[in-house]
Amino acid sequence: MLEEKKMALTPVSQLGEFGLIKHLTDKFSLKNSSSELGIGDDASIINPENKKVVISTDVLAEGVHFNLGYVPLKHLGYKAVVVNLSDIAAMNATPTQILVSMAASNRFPVEAFDEIYAGIALACEHYNVDLVGGDTTSSQAGLILNITAIGLANENELAKRSGAKPNDLLVVTGDLGGAYMGLQILEREHSVYLTNPNMQPEMEGYDYILERQLKPEARTDIKKTLTELDITPTSMIDISDGLASEILHLSDQSKVGFRLYEEKIPMDTLTITTADEFNLNPAMAALNGGEDYELLFTISPNDYEKIRNHPDFTIIGHATELEQGNYLVLRGSEQLTPLTAQGWDALLSK
Amino acid sequence: MLEEKKMALTPVSQLGEFGLIKHLTDKFSLKNSSSELGIGDDASIINPENKKVVISTDVLAEGVHFNLGYVPLKHLGYKAVVVNLSDIAAMNATPTQILVSMAASNRFPVEAFDEIYAGIALACEHYNVDLVGGDTTSSQAGLILNITAIGLANENELAKRSGAKPNDLLVVTGDLGGAYMGLQILEREHSVYLTNPNMQPEMEGYDYILERQLKPEARTDIKKTLTELDITPTSMIDISDGLASEILHLSDQSKVGFRLYEEKIPMDTLTITTADEFNLNPAMAALNGGEDYELLFTISPNDYEKIRNHPDFTIIGHATELEQGNYLVLRGSEQLTPLTAQGWDALLSK
Repeated sequence: MLEEKKMALTPVSQLGEFGLIKHLTDKFSLKNSSSELGIGDDASIINPENKKVVISTDVLAEGVHFNLGYVPLKHLGYKAVVVNLSDIAAMNATPTQILVSMAASNRFPVEAFDEIYAGIALACEHYNVDLVGGDTTSSQAGLILNITAIGLANENELAKRSGAKPNDLLVVTGDLGGAYMGLQILEREHSVYLTNPNMQPEMEGYDYILERQLKPEARTDIKKTLTELDITPTSMIDISDGLASEILHLSDQSKVGFRLYEEKIPMDTLTITTADEFNLNPAMAALNGGEDYELLFTISPNDYEKIRNHPDFTIIGHATELEQGNYLVLRGSEQLTPLTAQGWDALLSK
Repeated sequence: MLEEKKMALTPVSQLGEFGLIKHLTDKFSLKNSSSELGIGDDASIINPENKKVVISTDVLAEGVHFNLGYVPLKHLGYKAVVVNLSDIAAMNATPTQILVSMAASNRFPVEAFDEIYAGIALACEHYNVDLVGGDTTSSQAGLILNITAIGLANENELAKRSGAKPNDLLVVTGDLGGAYMGLQILEREHSVYLTNPNMQPEMEGYDYILERQLKPEARTDIKKTLTELDITPTSMIDISDGLASEILHLSDQSKVGFRLYEEKIPMDTLTITTADEFNLNPAMAALNGGEDYELLFTISPNDYEKIRNHPDFTIIGHATELEQGNYLVLRGSEQLTPLTAQGWDALLSK
């Protein structure tokens, strides 16, 4: 994508390792009072301000997690941050700092790093987090981005995967399946492009799901909403691998079963019509697609009234005793089908 | 090296991503009271116990930072942890947790990960730190290891790079240049091996410097020693890139100059004799070699008596006003030569 801009490209060797890091991080400043010392020392210093510290790390690898054929570098930088902030939000904590490590082959010029860091800067700005450290190195091939995110929370606010109790309500934020259907559009149009580079990609009308895939957002707003509603989730996880897989994680760690109602799964109209276009059951996209970065959590049934009409939340099921297992209640029937992390043969086509 | 053991090798695909992480991390348990929640949730939870949190991250890339032709995987895992703990020690903090991310091409079987994690486990045990998180992914080529280390310290104990004052004493732990001379031996013997695989490598008698290169240690013991001596360093850094480069970092961030005395630089006899063998000035190995992972720090001149006969420390120079610049005082003379991070032409050969 850089080539298209016909820019003069600067090899990384022209700046050197220290020079590159300085060039990339010079524009970042510290905004949070908990960020006591940022980039430039042996380590950064964080003042936890009497809170607990949560920390998470994720690797994104070229050819595995992203395809630079259709993912702009700036979006990649933004998304790499979001994915990690989502993990912090899934603890019901507030993200405050990130560290960014990168390994890139010498096919990436300084301008490519600039684009990635522009995306990282945008995410830092949007989510009010500080870049406080990192490392950059050359590698044998490809691009590897590793982001570590740090967040703070009071002890009584933290939500683990392990606290759900039978009869707790299963709640999800936003809508699901969009990121997966966006990926299908990108891959279809990329194949067309590879066959005939003169063909214009047909992306029009797919904006919402393309954005869900290329520029997802982390639900760092939910902690505040839950606090205002006076709700502490009994368990929580973010949806990175698909609703089914995440429910099974909560089940496994909370030692409960779940009933999930297919007809309750929130989906955008565009997700549904695009699934139709690909002859897929839209529920499959929600259950197994992943990358929606919405939050899935359980609450005490006593909190039902507080949440039931809230536009940010949808109640999609409830916890049971562990022995009752994990089941999907199919749309328009009482029929149960076991919830598994993969192989939705029954749902794959309509 | 795995091939030599004639083991049955297991492709990573046999375990899958979740399976591999579980397989690798199952044996780790949490030892520190500050480690509230380890691997298995969206993020780990750290209880800072009223201290400041310091955090650092480093990438090690195959072909850039290590050569698997002569670095055993277990040593690589150990060293990757040590490098990061050294950064925490350089803040005068106590390391408590690490997170480990890895990207590896499919030429690495499960047994290779086992070896790396055996080294990581050994380091965790030796330094009393907990593995609390991480991520593992496949990559297009090579092996990338990213470790994030966390440490705790009281506010008044922390030592940044920026606190040195004119007349402060410049102090270093241990001895320098050994890791660099160890690398010269490894590279020489590796070249011989590549030319004639039947030749036995000549490693005998080089144990100390080989260990300095292959299995360095982080000086996490120094914080305790300094506390016992009632010394808080005014500035501190670890020696990863060579003594000269680190002095210039302290100079830059503390806004002071330094006088370094060549004859005071502590070196092991084996480092000196090996440098002789390669026709190098041993001081060059200390000044520009790097990877010694000793600590370099400044103390108030008032603390001179506390430290001057301590076996862990050597006073190698002192800080001056910034305008006086950074100079090396050559051995056996009053002659000054400007201290630069590279290009020790005057010292390269005797």
